[in-house]
Amino acid sequence: MASTFFQISPRVEGLKKTLTDFVELECIPAEALHHKQMGAQGSADRWKVVPSVIGHLKTRAKSLGLWNLFLPSYYKESPGLTNLEYGILCEIMGRSHVAAEACNCAAPDTGNMEVFAKYGNDAQKAQWLKPLMDGTIRSAFAMTEPQVASSDATNIETRIVKDGDSYVVTGRKVWISGAGDPRCAVYLVMGKTDPSNPNKHKQQSVVIVPADTPGITVVRPMTVFGYDDAPHGHMELAFDNVRIPASNMVLGEGRGFEIIQGRLGPGRIHHCMRAIGLAERALEIHLLRITDPSRTAFGKTLSQHGKQSFDIAASRMDIDQARLLVLRAAATMDAKGPKAAMNEIAMAKVVVPNMTLAVIDRAIQAHGAAGVGQDFPLAYMYASVRTLRIADGPDEVHTIQIAKQELRRAPALRAHQANQLQAIAKL
Amino acid sequence: MASTFFQISPRVEGLKKTLTDFVELECIPAEALHHKQMGAQGSADRWKVVPSVIGHLKTRAKSLGLWNLFLPSYYKESPGLTNLEYGILCEIMGRSHVAAEACNCAAPDTGNMEVFAKYGNDAQKAQWLKPLMDGTIRSAFAMTEPQVASSDATNIETRIVKDGDSYVVTGRKVWISGAGDPRCAVYLVMGKTDPSNPNKHKQQSVVIVPADTPGITVVRPMTVFGYDDAPHGHMELAFDNVRIPASNMVLGEGRGFEIIQGRLGPGRIHHCMRAIGLAERALEIHLLRITDPSRTAFGKTLSQHGKQSFDIAASRMDIDQARLLVLRAAATMDAKGPKAAMNEIAMAKVVVPNMTLAVIDRAIQAHGAAGVGQDFPLAYMYASVRTLRIADGPDEVHTIQIAKQELRRAPALRAHQANQLQAIAKL
Amino acid sequence: MASTFFQISPRVEGLKKTLTDFVELECIPAEALHHKQMGAQGSADRWKVVPSVIGHLKTRAKSLGLWNLFLPSYYKESPGLTNLEYGILCEIMGRSHVAAEACNCAAPDTGNMEVFAKYGNDAQKAQWLKPLMDGTIRSAFAMTEPQVASSDATNIETRIVKDGDSYVVTGRKVWISGAGDPRCAVYLVMGKTDPSNPNKHKQQSVVIVPADTPGITVVRPMTVFGYDDAPHGHMELAFDNVRIPASNMVLGEGRGFEIIQGRLGPGRIHHCMRAIGLAERALEIHLLRITDPSRTAFGKTLSQHGKQSFDIAASRMDIDQARLLVLRAAATMDAKGPKAAMNEIAMAKVVVPNMTLAVIDRAIQAHGAAGVGQDFPLAYMYASVRTLRIADGPDEVHTIQIAKQELRRAPALRAHQANQLQAIAKL
Amino acid sequence: MASTFFQISPRVEGLKKTLTDFVELECIPAEALHHKQMGAQGSADRWKVVPSVIGHLKTRAKSLGLWNLFLPSYYKESPGLTNLEYGILCEIMGRSHVAAEACNCAAPDTGNMEVFAKYGNDAQKAQWLKPLMDGTIRSAFAMTEPQVASSDATNIETRIVKDGDSYVVTGRKVWISGAGDPRCAVYLVMGKTDPSNPNKHKQQSVVIVPADTPGITVVRPMTVFGYDDAPHGHMELAFDNVRIPASNMVLGEGRGFEIIQGRLGPGRIHHCMRAIGLAERALEIHLLRITDPSRTAFGKTLSQHGKQSFDIAASRMDIDQARLLVLRAAATMDAKGPKAAMNEIAMAKVVVPNMTLAVIDRAIQAHGAAGVGQDFPLAYMYASVRTLRIADGPDEVHTIQIAKQELRRAPALRAHQANQLQAIAKL
Repeated sequence: MASTFFQISPRVEGLKKTLTDFVELECIPAEALHHKQMGAQGSADRWKVVPSVIGHLKTRAKSLGLWNLFLPSYYKESPGLTNLEYGILCEIMGRSHVAAEACNCAAPDTGNMEVFAKYGNDAQKAQWLKPLMDGTIRSAFAMTEPQVASSDATNIETRIVKDGDSYVVTGRKVWISGAGDPRCAVYLVMGKTDPSNPNKHKQQSVVIVPADTPGITVVRPMTVFGYDDAPHGHMELAFDNVRIPASNMVLGEGRGFEIIQGRLGPGRIHHCMRAIGLAERALEIHLLRITDPSRTAFGKTLSQHGKQSFDIAASRMDIDQARLLVLRAAATMDAKGPKAAMNEIAMAKVVVPNMTLAVIDRAIQAHGAAGVGQDFPLAYMYASVRTLRIADGPDEVHTIQIAKQELRRAPALRAHQANQLQAIAKL
Repeated sequence: MASTFFQISPRVEGLKKTLTDFVELECIPAEALHHKQMGAQGSADRWKVVPSVIGHLKTRAKSLGLWNLFLPSYYKESPGLTNLEYGILCEIMGRSHVAAEACNCAAPDTGNMEVFAKYGNDAQKAQWLKPLMDGTIRSAFAMTEPQVASSDATNIETRIVKDGDSYVVTGRKVWISGAGDPRCAVYLVMGKTDPSNPNKHKQQSVVIVPADTPGITVVRPMTVFGYDDAPHGHMELAFDNVRIPASNMVLGEGRGFEIIQGRLGPGRIHHCMRAIGLAERALEIHLLRITDPSRTAFGKTLSQHGKQSFDIAASRMDIDQARLLVLRAAATMDAKGPKAAMNEIAMAKVVVPNMTLAVIDRAIQAHGAAGVGQDFPLAYMYASVRTLRIADGPDEVHTIQIAKQELRRAPALRAHQANQLQAIAKL
Repeated sequence: MASTFFQISPRVEGLKKTLTDFVELECIPAEALHHKQMGAQGSADRWKVVPSVIGHLKTRAKSLGLWNLFLPSYYKESPGLTNLEYGILCEIMGRSHVAAEACNCAAPDTGNMEVFAKYGNDAQKAQWLKPLMDGTIRSAFAMTEPQVASSDATNIETRIVKDGDSYVVTGRKVWISGAGDPRCAVYLVMGKTDPSNPNKHKQQSVVIVPADTPGITVVRPMTVFGYDDAPHGHMELAFDNVRIPASNMVLGEGRGFEIIQGRLGPGRIHHCMRAIGLAERALEIHLLRITDPSRTAFGKTLSQHGKQSFDIAASRMDIDQARLLVLRAAATMDAKGPKAAMNEIAMAKVVVPNMTLAVIDRAIQAHGAAGVGQDFPLAYMYASVRTLRIADGPDEVHTIQIAKQELRRAPALRAHQANQLQAIAKL
Repeated sequence: MASTFFQISPRVEGLKKTLTDFVELECIPAEALHHKQMGAQGSADRWKVVPSVIGHLKTRAKSLGLWNLFLPSYYKESPGLTNLEYGILCEIMGRSHVAAEACNCAAPDTGNMEVFAKYGNDAQKAQWLKPLMDGTIRSAFAMTEPQVASSDATNIETRIVKDGDSYVVTGRKVWISGAGDPRCAVYLVMGKTDPSNPNKHKQQSVVIVPADTPGITVVRPMTVFGYDDAPHGHMELAFDNVRIPASNMVLGEGRGFEIIQGRLGPGRIHHCMRAIGLAERALEIHLLRITDPSRTAFGKTLSQHGKQSFDIAASRMDIDQARLLVLRAAATMDAKGPKAAMNEIAMAKVVVPNMTLAVIDRAIQAHGAAGVGQDFPLAYMYASVRTLRIADGPDEVHTIQIAKQELRRAPALRAHQANQLQAIAKL
């Protein structure tokens, strides 16, 4: 057996081809119509509309066998792909901002479905996992809070208080992605059931809160660089004595940290791979612009000006390296589980968004003013990727984790160095 | 006489103090009200509203002697400041996005007023410069076109055809800043009067087009990372056989390049100095966030995490260097005129926006999701500064100009090297 | 078959273990002795010494089966590893600057051996390939010239003139690595046999020149940041009517470009993989320093100062990405040949040296003055890797090649865009 | 009085002209001879030679009035220049590595002379300041130690023990610049007189140690990227019971920190300004290379390849900004003293070396292999500037200081924000 590098199975090659055609010839062409069906940002019924085109695309994706591909093969509900295999396909979905939803592979539903699949009991699965996997409802995960530094999740203050057969939830959440969608039927809410537990990582629990429970107010949509990301949005939510059945506890009291950690591994890889797809598309848009024969400056197409070669090549080198890093993390997760892959996932999580922003920014610059406007997807891409340096843990948190892992090697290195000194002494 | 470094006259010190109080205690506090009075982006009367608070601020600025300070001392209409002196004040205005307009020092009016002051005849001055300096109307400069690479201005295709006592203007313009404002009464339009002139820099002219002339359509507002920048906006405009009196020609046919070059020097410095002010404000917002005692993570305020020290110090070093670069360019323009300062202006034009984006981006990152949202001005700052890497010539054009200037030194350096070789031979 | 990522065969796993032990416990401990046996830089017999320890290590490597591993499996003389497999091992050799030679896998011999194996006839192989593979002689490749921009190899001016049964070589070469070694017995010399050929890529040939041929002068050793890299060195050579038999032509007149292109693919990957090994070692040295309990500053070990975490993590992320990029290039070369891998090799060639310099520089900085001195290998590492941004084509040449490859995609992208527009029109 | 920017007095203009001619036509041409007179690195009498050309240049500089210009005007021994004025001249000296010594303005003598001028008593001045200012002896400052993290000077361990009328010095020092010079007659040695003082900043003292005192061993020269920087060098020194008169204490016991802090302000500015001069020279060498008509690649001079324009312009922008930053620090030191300028000096100290390294590295890359070799001064420049990121406090220490200064503004900013909120409430 010779050593091999990164091979793709025939099944995934087939899915890749089908998905590429779907994304390129159905999803990307549908983007403008999707935008038009949404109506203007700021309009009165902004948060009541679901563009009909997305329903059509979902039907198509289901019929093409491109449905729920994200759920890893170790769940019985899974279509049977590994994380590496899905990663390859996820890149293609990332090329169009409507494709992931069309394939029922959009965040935050994917992470939430995995929570239900991994930690939910049968009743919870029947009530929520089923319609989520059917694509008939959507969901949100409510963690971040406005008054505390949520990058340290032990700061979360929302109270979840047992009261007979119920839990009562009270708190304020913000940046709850997906909660603006009229189809969003359920929230997974993180909060404290045991705020005085001396172990800070045992204070938190996750509960299931149906979106129509009394006491919930959708306060306002947050904007990302001026975009509201409707229909899903990023909402501020108030929970005022929201009463849910005690059976809506996930996994058990005090196990919130266990749940969010289990949830994030694959999700981070998905975000990264979609970003890679988006970077590839930005690079293609960049290439098209600078080779446009009608846009010469000083007697040359832009591509003939030396600077552009260095920008284009930098984007290519950046993308290719980052993709390999994510796929390696996915393969490690497949081979050894999410915990063993934690560090590799963290590296991808830091590298990919920064890389993608650089690639998009170069494309913007090559477009002049058109790059920041609405006729090209570049500025919107930039805004959405910028949030990835913050979401699911800011760069800084992941970087420190990577460093800690390296520093743990020091004692073994020091022992090895002592062996080398002994070897020198013998020479 | 000892050598001296960068001193400020007592008059400017006084203005600085007055302006600082005005900006800090009147303009910045008015920003939220200004935003509220504008109504929601996408609303029906978006481009008909002028927030009343801006009228109030203008009255205040006039009464405080903070009016039209931008117009350099060599114009008889000037309040008498040098470019260096105004540069210092301009930084303070840049701290609030309403301050420049409040002081009648906002782009693109400033550049347009300078065109009228420098190149306009008495009739043109009476009709347009007077109300612009009074702040009763606003204006736009229509150069960029959608179908060509406008970074090379010889590509501009709009036709300006002489027809008896009139000129007839036909063409399509885009990204015309200020043209969305209901008070915008006049456009300066760049186009070709002599498209077959073998000297490509003689084909272009600039004409005065009243905004209410028949044949003009405001096609749509362009957005910048999702923001429409109302009330002034960045509009797409169609000129369809727009007939203006022949007396609306500025300076003379074929002198368009002369006008745009004369117009841009001070304007670029203004943009840069406002960006410096904005960078300082972003750094202050950054400092406030990371020292907020209520936002600890992992047991420390953010400022106690080592990474923040390096971000904060980087922002301080970046800002201080860039400011000195702009002020030097302003001083050179004062001492030797805009042409001699061209290279120093180009350096500032490249360095400052890139620097400011880095400073803002660090502040965004320290805020987490709040950094990209609407509760802090950071994302909006980022979007508006991003356009400065493109407007008035993209980074690439200025960089090449700077390099050309350096490369012109090569023959003298080669001669000098020959002298040194002779000196070596004698040793 | 599930998709797999990067697997290593049992044979290579075994070699990896043997080689790691050899490098860590024999080569690295021998470095100081090697340095001592060389004598002082500048000493009279600097270029006559071969440190005896290297002979000992060569014997050891041969006995351990770590000999000539570099030669790819498609040569009959090969020990049978693919480029990917050798790449993995090459990283380990890169950790010590004596290991590659110990394993008879050092540049430029490796590239030269491949030239003989690929293009040499039987007589040439018997005379030169045999002793090179036995490790009894060494060799050099003489291409770069002092008077021309050698990054464009068509500029090479050395003349190779046919004269009866001989060729006569005249020219000046510089930076000829390995030519300082007393064991260097043969040069492959690139020069022009047909300088007036209208096809600039047919003017050049490569001939075999025994190092002891009359007319050759070793003019002087060049230094790299102050290091002379003895014993192999980088020499300036003068060829003054150097007469060699006509049978010393390699492959045929006018085929010089074919030879240098065939020679460089694997060699670039070797350089890159050795650099990765060196980067890993630099990172280990970095980790040891900042965790040294005896070197606290301001009450903490350096590793407890926040900045170091970001440096360490950056190095880890940089290395891991770059390694994957090189291994991908090696695997592509194995699967599709060097030509198909050209672009992937170019990416590695640009990315890896820049990355390695950054990793080493961070380690230097963490060491303070010790980092630039002779007690740690860091400064020497930096100097030797700095040359990799230049050798075998500077960054700029490779970058432009990568960009060209991207730009070639533009027509297909434009056709695809037309299809998408048609799809939009149908919605 | 209008605001003015950076003006130079006629006297300094005159000195600038004289100095420029001296450096360009006498010092730079003497560099090769200086190198030749030194003999080969590694040679037996390496540390006994003083190149005679330096004596000649010193005589010339003295006669031209270019002597001791560094000593600030507030010392009675000063030739009367401010720090700003000397800064301007110091840049010119930085262009040649022999010029500063020729003008008796070389580190570490300058800092040591300032210590004697500022803190020395009359006897100490007569014995040491006089010959130093006459240029008849040289000196060194012995602070860094091999076994501790010397970036935190409280770690310094050398003992200075009172014994009757003597002090006895015992310890090990390393990287003692200038101590290799045969003319080096005196060391200022930092060590602990009171190691148990609870105030860590009171444990240290500085004493005067004549270089020929028994008990001193010059252990070895340290190298910087392979260069030994002879004749001055960077030596490792051993002090073994070195007995000096008690009158050799500077300022008083326990005042070591006061002395090193007073010494470093101007010295850092000198280092920075010399680095600026060196960066300018590197840029000139860069320009000469890429415009060399004999070095075309692919049919163009290098300057005609687009990438070079961006490199050249980057170097120009980087240099100009950094120079302004240093001169501002010098002017602040003149106006308000070194303590008030501490932060501005720290900024220059971080920015300038990093900038200079980038400028040199771009020049190296444009030269190909020649850039790292001995035929151009670039690699040596790089090595010597690399040490500036470490010497007199590493980047990290200065950066943290700059950040601390910024963070001190937070309470005032918070109070100001409260005022603004009140103003908002009133609208």
